[in-house]
Amino acid sequence: MNVAQKLITSHLVSGEPTPGSEIGLRVDHTLTQDATGTMVMLELEAMGLDRARTELSTQYVDHNLLQADERNAEDHAFLHSACRRFGLWYSKAGNGVSHPTHMQRFGRPGLTMAGSDSHTCAAGCLGMLAVGVGGVEVAMAIAGEPLYLTMPEIWGVELTGELPPWVSAKDVILEMLRRHDVEGGVNRIIEYHGPGLAHLSAMDRHVIANMGAELGATTTVFPADDAVRTFLRAEEREDDFTELLADEDATYDVHDHIDLAALVPLVAKPTSPGNVVPVSEVAGTEIGQAVIGSSANPGLRDFAIAAAMVRGRQSSDAVSFDVNPSSRQIFEDLTKTGATFDLLGAGARLHQTGCLGCIGMGQAPAQGTNSLRTFPRNFPGRSGTPDDSVFLCSPETAAASALTGTITDPRTWAEKYGIDYPALDLPTLHSVNTSMLVAPLPPAEAAKVELVKTPNISSLPDFEGLPDEVELPLALKVGDNLSTDEISPAGAAALPFRSNIPELAKFTFRPADPSYAERAASLGDHAVVGGENYGQGSSREHAAITPRYLGLRMVVAKSYARIHWQNLANFGVLALEFADPGDYDALGRGDTLALDGLHEKLRTGRDLHARVGDRTIRLRHRLSPRQVDMVLTGGVIPVLRREIQGS
Amino acid sequence: MNVAQKLITSHLVSGEPTPGSEIGLRVDHTLTQDATGTMVMLELEAMGLDRARTELSTQYVDHNLLQADERNAEDHAFLHSACRRFGLWYSKAGNGVSHPTHMQRFGRPGLTMAGSDSHTCAAGCLGMLAVGVGGVEVAMAIAGEPLYLTMPEIWGVELTGELPPWVSAKDVILEMLRRHDVEGGVNRIIEYHGPGLAHLSAMDRHVIANMGAELGATTTVFPADDAVRTFLRAEEREDDFTELLADEDATYDVHDHIDLAALVPLVAKPTSPGNVVPVSEVAGTEIGQAVIGSSANPGLRDFAIAAAMVRGRQSSDAVSFDVNPSSRQIFEDLTKTGATFDLLGAGARLHQTGCLGCIGMGQAPAQGTNSLRTFPRNFPGRSGTPDDSVFLCSPETAAASALTGTITDPRTWAEKYGIDYPALDLPTLHSVNTSMLVAPLPPAEAAKVELVKTPNISSLPDFEGLPDEVELPLALKVGDNLSTDEISPAGAAALPFRSNIPELAKFTFRPADPSYAERAASLGDHAVVGGENYGQGSSREHAAITPRYLGLRMVVAKSYARIHWQNLANFGVLALEFADPGDYDALGRGDTLALDGLHEKLRTGRDLHARVGDRTIRLRHRLSPRQVDMVLTGGVIPVLRREIQGS
Repeated sequence: MNVAQKLITSHLVSGEPTPGSEIGLRVDHTLTQDATGTMVMLELEAMGLDRARTELSTQYVDHNLLQADERNAEDHAFLHSACRRFGLWYSKAGNGVSHPTHMQRFGRPGLTMAGSDSHTCAAGCLGMLAVGVGGVEVAMAIAGEPLYLTMPEIWGVELTGELPPWVSAKDVILEMLRRHDVEGGVNRIIEYHGPGLAHLSAMDRHVIANMGAELGATTTVFPADDAVRTFLRAEEREDDFTELLADEDATYDVHDHIDLAALVPLVAKPTSPGNVVPVSEVAGTEIGQAVIGSSANPGLRDFAIAAAMVRGRQSSDAVSFDVNPSSRQIFEDLTKTGATFDLLGAGARLHQTGCLGCIGMGQAPAQGTNSLRTFPRNFPGRSGTPDDSVFLCSPETAAASALTGTITDPRTWAEKYGIDYPALDLPTLHSVNTSMLVAPLPPAEAAKVELVKTPNISSLPDFEGLPDEVELPLALKVGDNLSTDEISPAGAAALPFRSNIPELAKFTFRPADPSYAERAASLGDHAVVGGENYGQGSSREHAAITPRYLGLRMVVAKSYARIHWQNLANFGVLALEFADPGDYDALGRGDTLALDGLHEKLRTGRDLHARVGDRTIRLRHRLSPRQVDMVLTGGVIPVLRREIQGS
Repeated sequence: MNVAQKLITSHLVSGEPTPGSEIGLRVDHTLTQDATGTMVMLELEAMGLDRARTELSTQYVDHNLLQADERNAEDHAFLHSACRRFGLWYSKAGNGVSHPTHMQRFGRPGLTMAGSDSHTCAAGCLGMLAVGVGGVEVAMAIAGEPLYLTMPEIWGVELTGELPPWVSAKDVILEMLRRHDVEGGVNRIIEYHGPGLAHLSAMDRHVIANMGAELGATTTVFPADDAVRTFLRAEEREDDFTELLADEDATYDVHDHIDLAALVPLVAKPTSPGNVVPVSEVAGTEIGQAVIGSSANPGLRDFAIAAAMVRGRQSSDAVSFDVNPSSRQIFEDLTKTGATFDLLGAGARLHQTGCLGCIGMGQAPAQGTNSLRTFPRNFPGRSGTPDDSVFLCSPETAAASALTGTITDPRTWAEKYGIDYPALDLPTLHSVNTSMLVAPLPPAEAAKVELVKTPNISSLPDFEGLPDEVELPLALKVGDNLSTDEISPAGAAALPFRSNIPELAKFTFRPADPSYAERAASLGDHAVVGGENYGQGSSREHAAITPRYLGLRMVVAKSYARIHWQNLANFGVLALEFADPGDYDALGRGDTLALDGLHEKLRTGRDLHARVGDRTIRLRHRLSPRQVDMVLTGGVIPVLRREIQGS
């Protein structure tokens, strides 16, 4: 067996692990962040849960850190109280980005994890099976329910050779995106193997696993080998190490191969992580901002290499050179090793520890300027700036470009100034810091805790089940690869309302169509039509909840991104696909889709028909019986409530 | 002569320096920050200035740092281009708070400075006469015009003794506020003298001079003595030192005395910096936030003492312990000395260098929780949170409280744990860092620079002069000590519009009366009635411009804060006072004030009468002939434009 198969079979509680079947997996860890976690905690409350039933669940505060008004701090206080109430770990605001922090303090080979953040897959770097899902599925996992997935294909990617100087892990995953684009990993688990692994540290693998999300993959796994042991030893957790390797005769459903030695510095151009070219192709492009940080380049190494490059030099006058330490421990080690001092000396803006600009929480660039970032995503407007122009790259490329003021291949820069690739002398033992990690309360104390709720923390609205017969006007038609950032935007304006559905709903589809929310409210029940890979990107279930709140009952798309497809079912929105993708072109706003006999058809088959005027369009669904039940009942919450009341 | 008199006489270009007369002073330095500076640069453009005529002018970017959308970064790009165009220094976003940064790199004994920030007075710590004024007065100073002031009384405050352990400079200025409240310094220059000075470093004096603004003082001065020499030597600028002492037989108009040895830790309770009590009186109050930083406690010492107190300890689980380094140099020295490491270890959120929460740019606390801050101001809502509860204190009090989770007298804490007051071993040479200070361009290059303007940077609106006869409905009546934070709020929502008057105007008076802007727009020309010390606090001229934009033609108040009173004249709003303060009670919304023969009466006398229904109210003005001209012409911009076109 390969590593992915071993992880799946050791956690399988239902279904057959053949690609395309629904499987249920036992969940060991959960991860929530604050932008999705407030909803998860409200769901735990709605479910009447007494205490988390996982081995470990941690709530991180890494998104809503700006506190432009009282709402962020009120969310933090609510989450703190919910962790005390339900027996979760609480990682305080400013402690660190969830993914590297979880890896440092909690991650362990051989475990499964469900996380309400699409980059949860980063934990695959330690030999975990970590899957980003909608918040309510994390709530179910916390309640001890299995995680349901469509069993993916296992995609073996063999790595050989060693990365050349000035090329690093980020360029490996950018190469994957260059080859396969943002849909290349859909319904697949990516498993890296081969001799090239020997030269990639656990944190390098984090970079690669993290951005598996951008390929649309269900998750990414690496073996738990000596690199993982070395990492856990540095974290004073060697006891948590278990070796987990693919069998020698392991096979994969799909194959690919990367010669690390042949890679060059790469960059994703606006406005997709899949729009990848060699840096040399856009070299000389002026930039107004260079940012280093995020879960896509969170390692001590990633900051240290930038610090070594800029040491004794000065960032360009016209560039805002921003550095976002990814975790408290890494900030400490950067300080201990002198890297903090070097970065300050070169004119870097050193920010608090967190996601920040990566989710549009500050750091928005000026319009008409280019921003170069080591982040995972550059979807339109995600930076907080309309018509933004964001490029994604490695820390080496970002640091060289910060110095020159233009997008710069670090190899060209090094050659020009006769600079050798810095040999980093990093500590073999990391700073271990738990000052902002609050442990769960003992059960007796926890039971007495009251949730701290303010008016901005609203309860989850109740949704009705799908009628047997619908006539739905088409409120919106969008193109391919629409991301959840365009359905329910992040950013400093919207994020404070993540625990307040009526307010957040006003932002629905705003980047795609600013008039949608108002139109939907006047239409009432309605449908939306999408293209390929509908709902890619972030795991936020708000992208299902807020349109549903405004009356969305059905989406018809050419294909779906995995997490959003699940989220739609979880909140009772019927997700259908065109049997003939050509019918997409025939539909437009003003059309009305009429379907009848829905309950029977959904329960017994895959095919449906919609009448649109005098035409008929063939549609189909991929819902499991469990999901059909949710859609007919109004989502997973009423289903769970029914079960709890019945038991 | 005392120090203040020496500074004034050496720069006097018009008037007699007797209290109450208008004097004109030559200006050596100017300071602008980004929240007011965009307007200053637009004014320079409107005036047709080619190049700054001061010895040195510096534009700091320290307010609008969050970049929640594109507007902040666009302001930065505009300011950068304006500095290149007009021959100013440009301090990049993240370099530091203007006041400590100016002190470190540019401040010099014996000079005058005009700054579009109310805390400009902080530079008095170096023996400068530094005055916070409205932006357009700084624009005039940059253009080589004198700074006009009402000659204040000189208030000599004798300091004797030495501060006891756990009591620091912040407690000195809090003691002044305890004694004299927020109006105690109006129309006064505070000059500290006496043997107690020997124990206060230049940066300690910065703390005291900075918050002279909260007393309403015109400015604060200290002598330039050995403490100043020591500071400039540490900054590698000993050549910039000139001794400037009061003559031995110097006298003062007003006298006060503080025995430093008798002081205790003090705290200003919500919602006024003048609401001061001993910390012991509120000890035990739970807090949700403790913040160290801002121009009111910017020194290396201020952070280092906190770091020493929390070293090896942990901040309370329920407290967000925020640290805002005040300047890049200080952040470097904190890192060099290990303080950064200690703060991180104790669970501090270390933020980018800047003003941040001090001007409501992030760090807003949750409603219903208490926030303890080393900031200068706790006016209602300034934190960004409605009905906030903000306490002001020293770093010692903030650090002890961050550890305990309740407001804590650091002496009690030290006694409880047997802790001695930390002896700090601070470097005698500071890190000098100019990586984010961009020098002015040579004139030939500067002349070719184009200003970088985006749609959010609007031109200054034109305002009409005051008619000879007015009938003005009363749109709003407010109480005593209304701050400019309540007239034109700061904070993350409003600040991005500081260069866009039509948009910013929508926020006018919002904290005092959310319906004002809409009502004013429907009323057209109107009046506002205020109590004592109307317009205290921040120097922002937007608090005059945006109500004027909405039709404000006249304010009638019991008394005014100095800067706002000048700003009203600068933008053509007539500021009148009640001859009989009792008439304040007789006025209310719905009343209409009618005045006629205004032009003649303003030019020839001080007294006016307003008809309100069948009553007559006696009013008076304190405008100089120069200011009367402005009000009749529509503000200083049309006056200057007329002069430039005439010459």
